[in-house]
Amino acid sequence: MDTTLLPKMLYGGDYNPEQWDPSVWPEDMRMLELAGMNVATVNVFSWAMIQPAEDTYDFSTLDRIMDMLADNGLHACLATGTGAHPAWMARRHPDVLRTDFEGRKRKFGGRHNSCPNSPSYRMYAERLADKLADRYKDHPALLLWHISNEYGGDCYCDNCAAAFRVWLQRKYGTLEKLNEQWNTRFWSHTFYDWDEIVPPNALSEQWAETRTNFQGISLDYARFNSDGMLDCYKLERDAVRRHTPDVPVTTNLMGTYKPLDYFKWAKEMDIVSWDNYPGMDTPVSFTSMTHDLMRGLKGGRPFLLMEQTPSQQNWQAYNTLKRPGVMRLWSYQAVAHGSDSVMFFQLRRSVGACEKYHGALIEHAGHEHTRVFRECAELGRELDRFGAKLLGTRLPSRIAILYDWENRWAIELSSGPSVDLKYVNEIQRYYDALYELGHQVDLISFEDELAGYDIVLAPVMYMVKPGMADRLERFVANGGAFLTTFFSGIVNENDLVALGGYPGELRKLLGIWAEEIDALFPGRTNAIVMKEAHGALEGAYSCSLLCDLIHAEGADVLAEYGEDFYRGMPVLTRNRFGEGEAWYVASAPDAAFLQGLLGEMCRAKGIRPLPGKAPGVEVTRRERDGKSYLFVLNHNEHEATVRLDGLSGTDLITGRAVSGDVRLAGRDVLIVEHFA
Amino acid sequence: MDTTLLPKMLYGGDYNPEQWDPSVWPEDMRMLELAGMNVATVNVFSWAMIQPAEDTYDFSTLDRIMDMLADNGLHACLATGTGAHPAWMARRHPDVLRTDFEGRKRKFGGRHNSCPNSPSYRMYAERLADKLADRYKDHPALLLWHISNEYGGDCYCDNCAAAFRVWLQRKYGTLEKLNEQWNTRFWSHTFYDWDEIVPPNALSEQWAETRTNFQGISLDYARFNSDGMLDCYKLERDAVRRHTPDVPVTTNLMGTYKPLDYFKWAKEMDIVSWDNYPGMDTPVSFTSMTHDLMRGLKGGRPFLLMEQTPSQQNWQAYNTLKRPGVMRLWSYQAVAHGSDSVMFFQLRRSVGACEKYHGALIEHAGHEHTRVFRECAELGRELDRFGAKLLGTRLPSRIAILYDWENRWAIELSSGPSVDLKYVNEIQRYYDALYELGHQVDLISFEDELAGYDIVLAPVMYMVKPGMADRLERFVANGGAFLTTFFSGIVNENDLVALGGYPGELRKLLGIWAEEIDALFPGRTNAIVMKEAHGALEGAYSCSLLCDLIHAEGADVLAEYGEDFYRGMPVLTRNRFGEGEAWYVASAPDAAFLQGLLGEMCRAKGIRPLPGKAPGVEVTRRERDGKSYLFVLNHNEHEATVRLDGLSGTDLITGRAVSGDVRLAGRDVLIVEHFA
Amino acid sequence: MDTTLLPKMLYGGDYNPEQWDPSVWPEDMRMLELAGMNVATVNVFSWAMIQPAEDTYDFSTLDRIMDMLADNGLHACLATGTGAHPAWMARRHPDVLRTDFEGRKRKFGGRHNSCPNSPSYRMYAERLADKLADRYKDHPALLLWHISNEYGGDCYCDNCAAAFRVWLQRKYGTLEKLNEQWNTRFWSHTFYDWDEIVPPNALSEQWAETRTNFQGISLDYARFNSDGMLDCYKLERDAVRRHTPDVPVTTNLMGTYKPLDYFKWAKEMDIVSWDNYPGMDTPVSFTSMTHDLMRGLKGGRPFLLMEQTPSQQNWQAYNTLKRPGVMRLWSYQAVAHGSDSVMFFQLRRSVGACEKYHGALIEHAGHEHTRVFRECAELGRELDRFGAKLLGTRLPSRIAILYDWENRWAIELSSGPSVDLKYVNEIQRYYDALYELGHQVDLISFEDELAGYDIVLAPVMYMVKPGMADRLERFVANGGAFLTTFFSGIVNENDLVALGGYPGELRKLLGIWAEEIDALFPGRTNAIVMKEAHGALEGAYSCSLLCDLIHAEGADVLAEYGEDFYRGMPVLTRNRFGEGEAWYVASAPDAAFLQGLLGEMCRAKGIRPLPGKAPGVEVTRRERDGKSYLFVLNHNEHEATVRLDGLSGTDLITGRAVSGDVRLAGRDVLIVEHFA
Repeated sequence: MDTTLLPKMLYGGDYNPEQWDPSVWPEDMRMLELAGMNVATVNVFSWAMIQPAEDTYDFSTLDRIMDMLADNGLHACLATGTGAHPAWMARRHPDVLRTDFEGRKRKFGGRHNSCPNSPSYRMYAERLADKLADRYKDHPALLLWHISNEYGGDCYCDNCAAAFRVWLQRKYGTLEKLNEQWNTRFWSHTFYDWDEIVPPNALSEQWAETRTNFQGISLDYARFNSDGMLDCYKLERDAVRRHTPDVPVTTNLMGTYKPLDYFKWAKEMDIVSWDNYPGMDTPVSFTSMTHDLMRGLKGGRPFLLMEQTPSQQNWQAYNTLKRPGVMRLWSYQAVAHGSDSVMFFQLRRSVGACEKYHGALIEHAGHEHTRVFRECAELGRELDRFGAKLLGTRLPSRIAILYDWENRWAIELSSGPSVDLKYVNEIQRYYDALYELGHQVDLISFEDELAGYDIVLAPVMYMVKPGMADRLERFVANGGAFLTTFFSGIVNENDLVALGGYPGELRKLLGIWAEEIDALFPGRTNAIVMKEAHGALEGAYSCSLLCDLIHAEGADVLAEYGEDFYRGMPVLTRNRFGEGEAWYVASAPDAAFLQGLLGEMCRAKGIRPLPGKAPGVEVTRRERDGKSYLFVLNHNEHEATVRLDGLSGTDLITGRAVSGDVRLAGRDVLIVEHFA
Repeated sequence: MDTTLLPKMLYGGDYNPEQWDPSVWPEDMRMLELAGMNVATVNVFSWAMIQPAEDTYDFSTLDRIMDMLADNGLHACLATGTGAHPAWMARRHPDVLRTDFEGRKRKFGGRHNSCPNSPSYRMYAERLADKLADRYKDHPALLLWHISNEYGGDCYCDNCAAAFRVWLQRKYGTLEKLNEQWNTRFWSHTFYDWDEIVPPNALSEQWAETRTNFQGISLDYARFNSDGMLDCYKLERDAVRRHTPDVPVTTNLMGTYKPLDYFKWAKEMDIVSWDNYPGMDTPVSFTSMTHDLMRGLKGGRPFLLMEQTPSQQNWQAYNTLKRPGVMRLWSYQAVAHGSDSVMFFQLRRSVGACEKYHGALIEHAGHEHTRVFRECAELGRELDRFGAKLLGTRLPSRIAILYDWENRWAIELSSGPSVDLKYVNEIQRYYDALYELGHQVDLISFEDELAGYDIVLAPVMYMVKPGMADRLERFVANGGAFLTTFFSGIVNENDLVALGGYPGELRKLLGIWAEEIDALFPGRTNAIVMKEAHGALEGAYSCSLLCDLIHAEGADVLAEYGEDFYRGMPVLTRNRFGEGEAWYVASAPDAAFLQGLLGEMCRAKGIRPLPGKAPGVEVTRRERDGKSYLFVLNHNEHEATVRLDGLSGTDLITGRAVSGDVRLAGRDVLIVEHFA
Repeated sequence: MDTTLLPKMLYGGDYNPEQWDPSVWPEDMRMLELAGMNVATVNVFSWAMIQPAEDTYDFSTLDRIMDMLADNGLHACLATGTGAHPAWMARRHPDVLRTDFEGRKRKFGGRHNSCPNSPSYRMYAERLADKLADRYKDHPALLLWHISNEYGGDCYCDNCAAAFRVWLQRKYGTLEKLNEQWNTRFWSHTFYDWDEIVPPNALSEQWAETRTNFQGISLDYARFNSDGMLDCYKLERDAVRRHTPDVPVTTNLMGTYKPLDYFKWAKEMDIVSWDNYPGMDTPVSFTSMTHDLMRGLKGGRPFLLMEQTPSQQNWQAYNTLKRPGVMRLWSYQAVAHGSDSVMFFQLRRSVGACEKYHGALIEHAGHEHTRVFRECAELGRELDRFGAKLLGTRLPSRIAILYDWENRWAIELSSGPSVDLKYVNEIQRYYDALYELGHQVDLISFEDELAGYDIVLAPVMYMVKPGMADRLERFVANGGAFLTTFFSGIVNENDLVALGGYPGELRKLLGIWAEEIDALFPGRTNAIVMKEAHGALEGAYSCSLLCDLIHAEGADVLAEYGEDFYRGMPVLTRNRFGEGEAWYVASAPDAAFLQGLLGEMCRAKGIRPLPGKAPGVEVTRRERDGKSYLFVLNHNEHEATVRLDGLSGTDLITGRAVSGDVRLAGRDVLIVEHFA
């Protein structure tokens, strides 16, 4: 399915005219046009309107909205509207209500409030999707299906318990197998009947969201919960596909959102879309990493930025305004990382309830004479001018970072060695080093093909899934450079430890044995002392968090610990394996060390940084058919001078020729079109 | 109804002889007399004693207590005793038990534990009040009715849910109106049947006490909860009034206690009384403000200080002793702000349970040879000597600060812009500036008459109720000076935003438009830069919390922001409107700025500070019939010199003539009687 | 019953072969022998294995394990296995599941999960113990019974409520008595029927684990809970005793674990054993104190160190490795304080679930070539060589510190005066001073005989139980030195205040009256100013937390407060009483003051410190039959020089003669055998 939806970059956002009197709508249309918008996401929370009672469906308002969009040249990203169930449904069919982690049956309220295993919810949600698709399948505004909204959360009700047991039977076949994989002889937990199994929550195995007595059941429940919601998604997706086999289907994801295994989800989506809500203190490179992860969900294909705020959020503790230029800069950041859209939540600010202080294209003042509107309209003009050139272009990379939701769940359910070990932080630690060096990187799953890469990084590959070790060995044997870190190779896919010595199945590849794992108190460090210079690396660096106490078993020792009783033990090793090399970083190093190490790995592979990188300046490249687009994003408030080195081309935004040293205003952007 | 209860200042406190063997009582009487006391609050927690079973009432102990009081020349502040229900009632009629914010049905325990919508509680409480009043209506000791005790808390049970729906029907008439005012099209919340509405708590719309998905329902539930308790109060009040139409009725309030709208409550009370429990680190001016708020509840009429501790509290984290002189000083502070009583919790320390380490006139040692007793007895002698002169005197003020419970609820339920915005803090910020300048101020409600004031301040008037804007315009047009701040004029009484530009209905009066609202992280500031000197204001000041980005629309710009991208935008404006001026302070300024600004506003109105103000010294004035009483309270530990300027009079405490510069010992007090 | 179990020091630990395939077992045996081990704790969590269904018992695996132990010369510490109930039992008999403090009925999960008043749990647990004992009563491996595991936690279910009422009836006889002792006239709490009483938890009287409205009921519930678990223990103990009257019985305690009154428990145990899990930041002397408390539970008899980790824990936030030498050092620390064993959790690391990252003799690597194994094996060789000499030796002391669980419960349930008052901290404050001085000390109960001591310290003796004051008076009258502190002598055993003046029943003995109690904010101090030098004490010291404002009534005032309004009031007093002295320390002093004061008290009694004390070096002495063993433990990382003064003897570890100044390597240990 071709996922270039329009011959232009999508520009628009969430639009809820049903909250307003229709007399307001013409003014909306005028302002959307003024802002250069071409798409509106509609019907996100209209279930109660469309289905006011058990057996009544009323599409009249949505008909008017869809017609209005079409009449005004706008395309519809049409949501199925199941993100919040109606109040009448909660009262008549309480099975739609969730039971929370504390075991409390919820009442009507909020959104994303339906039990994923509720028969009523599944039946009514699928039916609504079916009716919608049947009604609008030929509507000229229909561009894209948006299933439900921001799937998430969890439930622990009896319906979920029953479904979990079925899920477990399907996975394990027998209780013997389940008992073995969950190691239930521990603490007398042997199950003799499937019905003895209860969901792991605050009333059973867990004493906090990430603290469990049994990693096995908690890990499986995380999978089950992600799968159950995915089933809900698929029910709706299949319903709309029956009517519109050619209209692509998405649902809006949420970056590194932990509870859902997005690699599994993306397989069921035609196009990935996501909602980008960094805090005002989120590192810029964290947002970049998240974009790259979203791009990686479907093998590098362009994605959609489905939501971002034009300025303010409302649910942060301190809802700072986006400074002038920041909305534009971050919009281009999304595009720079592979988005084929710039979309907002929301087009008109609601008048009541909890999101009324969330930014919007049309603020409560109601007119276009605002800073925020002006910035949006200016961006609309720019995207209209040249956005189409970027559609469908790809970001080439010879470096991959492996990312895995199940691995994250397992790490963060672990009792010991340190509560400060957070998977995403460790991924970001490596990502940031490459970002600062000006290297483009892919984030890919544990299952993705490695052959196209020169360098593969797998920070904290705690869980080694079946076949993974073989695949990594093949990759390295064929000349690849592989790197992993402390606390890797420890468990199988069910969190059972690989016996015989860490890093288990990766031991041969890495040529080391990790005898012990020391946890450092916050603020405590050890030293990484280079035995001799390696590229730019020399002398001593700092490390923290965890320190594996390792022995080289064939690997070269490039650096040793400088302190404590394991001073002199290896902290950085390289194992030559076949044509390639496998690296082990036994602790969590500082940024200088990682930039030195990864810089040298890239040099060794002949991978050159993108031109234009400077402090506070981000660079990426999209390309297709021999044409390249170098994005240079100045995240500084102040002007920066960037060196394009040999590259010369045309700035898409200004139309000017650029080469050599270029001065870029604070928060400004260059998009240099050139031949690769 | 004349609320001067006795021809002397009330002096006494909570007295629970039923906790003790009657052999102890004569000693109590001896010590109360020794301390100069004339009133005892009795029967506060005697329900279980008086009604030991469903159909049994036994007044014998209370009879003895009342007779003893009368025999010893003491007056009774007679509580109805419904502040805690009996254990047997909880067991036989579980509807009296509350369901908490987490949705948990409570069991017997604590106090203030009855569901306000419990049929059993309402029936039995009213019946008890009725029987009490019938029995003691002619008792010579009876001085004042004290209904229940410190009403508070909330309940979310099914009885409350049903009552809430009736309350909503009464308010909104139709579901259409309710849906519109709650903006239920948002998140698919449309209600089609009243029974679909459930109370907003942790199981439905809220994820914390002050975090809600729907401000509309949460705000209405706050009103409903306050009203429901008020109904309970009224049931009892009406019961006692039937028997004793001439005995005044009160219930003890708790200052700025958030859940109950005391302005509404005060309308139903004959006299306001309250319990003053500052922490050892509460600013002195906060206590002053709270006294003024309590006085403001009934239009400036004297109130009663119903409870304070003679020394220690028990429920603070660190229960520091009141230093020598502090109890006396704070007692006079209450009187200085309009109290016609000084009363304590408690007269004899209980021997067991959680308040046994709370201070008392008679401590566990049981005799009068304690510091605390001596201080109380000394104060008793003083009050006896001159207290009567102060009874019924008023505190004149030409300055009012508007305070509103519903406004507070709405502000603190808001999602965004900043969790640090606390209504009472902002009120206190302005109050404190006036306090430091030596100006007396009234705290009045949004509904109170403004005509008598020269200056009206309304910090964070977020909610503009119907008719409010007109009343303010009239006040200013007639020559008044009005001031409001950032985040004002935003919503109507149901938290629906006023469209068309903030500050909504106040925009014309203020002559400005607030385009955006920036939230600052803790510790971050902007600068207020005066364009030219204004009175003592010149140069730059600091501001924080929130910064409205405003445009002058007719208003004069007196100061501009000094930093960030909105540097140069107005931060202080003054709009001439009719004969008066309307000021807007777009951020939260530092104390120096506010003292400068408010000082100049007062000077412009010819309002002079009270004499005697000095650092750490508080001044107020009560007056009647041409006689004035200037209170000068030295809150410093050390001696202070205060300047009485031209004033000369007689110090009520020492009987000495005072004038000119007076030296006042640490924690000492002057009460200068003079002719106005 | 002779509790010297073997003619050698026990060395071994928890062993769970049922978690592993029997093919692994021979390797376990080989490694245990290699490590010099002689005992294995087995069957701790095997209930589900042994009783797979209601009416089925299967001992076959345990038979094999027991036989294997015997065949390999290992002794069994045989657990009854009731520390976690099977899943089938939770499903079929939900009464075994607890209801937690929040009132939530739990589901299957975790361990130590059975309601102590569950009829099903009691019936099945006793039956299991009975069957086990019957089966293994003659087994050659059987050495010691280990009942259940780490009893703890609490339950608030209806079965507990009913049992609590019976417990109360037994204690109080009548409701009148109960109402009086709980002071239920306060807050209208009078009970007219036993069934009106509900357990005190978050739904009734408490708003946190240590915050209650009624100390009386909460204190009794703590007793009831401890007693209920003890009943469970006794049911099992009696069952095994019926079969094996000569096999000693223990259960593993947890040091200062708050919920169980271990002095009461120890009376029912043949030998005390406990699990020692200090954090990496726990003060060394805290561990020492806990060992002494465990030794004190049975009048100074040797105890067993049942569990410690060979290196890492898993449930701390940061699970630091035990540095080289630390496991050995802390093992000797246990022995130095009276342990006749060194035992570990665990012998083989489990492969799954939450303790898989907890240290073990046999780590996941599975072989003996690890640092941890080598250290264990080395220690095994040492203990094997000389451990037998230490068995049954005692630690002589002329100083006792009184410790009491009920006193702790009462103090920490108190509402006021300070949340920072923690009983164990105050005990530790005095213990640490003696520790630093090199004095050996006993921790004994409020009921223990005092006659054998010269000095008795009772920090914060808040609760004075019946007869206690008399016993202390007799002790002092006979020449003893007694010391207590602020907030002592306040309440009776039901938390009712002793009227007439603090310290109540101790007032005569101490010769002082405490009029008030001031609570200091964190970081605030007062000064202790010596009136004249007393031993090494002179000048000023610091104190904090609480300050009693006391008056001497016959006592000598040795020091006064130096600050605040009570400057000049006594802070340190000594009352000569009969032949002895009673000291009162009215605040919480700094370490220098306490070392000075206690040093002088010891000197006055002719108690000399043990030789060998140095900074960071700990000393203790065990002795029997004229032979003494001086333990010198260097807790420093670096070498220390210790002075043995006149003492000369033989180091048990090295076999070398030692005397005079001895250099001791970092973390090294001397055990000097000499004649007393």
